Amino acid sequence: MKRPGCPLCDGPGGVLVFEGPQFRLIRADEAGFPAFYRLVWAEHLSEFSDLGPAQRHLCMDAVVQVEQSLRVHLHPTKVNLAALGNVVPHLHWHIIARFDWDSHFPGPVWAPAQREAAPDRIAWVERLRTGLEEDLASRLAKGSGNLTTP
Amino acid sequence: MKRPGCPLCDGPGGVLVFEGPQFRLIRADEAGFPAFYRLVWAEHLSEFSDLGPAQRHLCMDAVVQVEQSLRVHLHPTKVNLAALGNVVPHLHWHIIARFDWDSHFPGPVWAPAQREAAPDRIAWVERLRTGLEEDLASRLAKGSGNLTTP
Repeated sequence: MKRPGCPLCDGPGGVLVFEGPQFRLIRADEAGFPAFYRLVWAEHLSEFSDLGPAQRHLCMDAVVQVEQSLRVHLHPTKVNLAALGNVVPHLHWHIIARFDWDSHFPGPVWAPAQREAAPDRIAWVERLRTGLEEDLASRLAKGSGNLTTP
Repeated sequence: MKRPGCPLCDGPGGVLVFEGPQFRLIRADEAGFPAFYRLVWAEHLSEFSDLGPAQRHLCMDAVVQVEQSLRVHLHPTKVNLAALGNVVPHLHWHIIARFDWDSHFPGPVWAPAQREAAPDRIAWVERLRTGLEEDLASRLAKGSGNLTTP
């Protein structure tokens, strides 16, 4: 069910990487974070625990696929996962590749910046994104019908 | 395996609410957030995707139990979930009851404060915590040997 006025019901919310019946993956346009993805649940639900067990497992298996692909392709210093939704209470997982050179590391992306990230490093991640996003789409297409296998 | 020098290997990291063989739940001492919990994985692992599928499901089933208990006992405006670990790369999930009156809402707890929370509202949550934490311990004790039932 779509909720009128919800930005994640009304539009994709970012660059669409994968779309399946239960969720989609978008690349968020967040300055300084070239590998900031969001897994958006298709149905308008507010809390993670609004999902049933099989849906939760499917959702987190997909989050893990994204995390693993980020690790393989980008070798980030850390991956950050978060389901907040205070502003847009439509279930979505932030999945963010963090690097020790990024503008906020080791702070969360929502904390104040600590430095300006070097543009050549951001460009390096951007160059790897084509391969990364092909892999992301492929992994999620394989897994989207499967409730338990990672 | 414990990692020397890791604060989540060396100590509980907060007020212990529940401890099982695979994870523990602690209440974090974060000023202004009276219902800020952390589910800490016992083994020193860095990323969520370092867990195998059964461990991941066990972990998220426990996170969901905590979220559901927070919802039942406190009726928060929103629950926030996050696995960041940039500073302490030992797998832990932040599980935070958020209220529209709290100091940072609707911003993340890591963003700048937007107001001072009213002490009487914080005290109201603190009074509910005894019942909440008994329920948390009971739910996690029941679920900790069970890999799939929420």
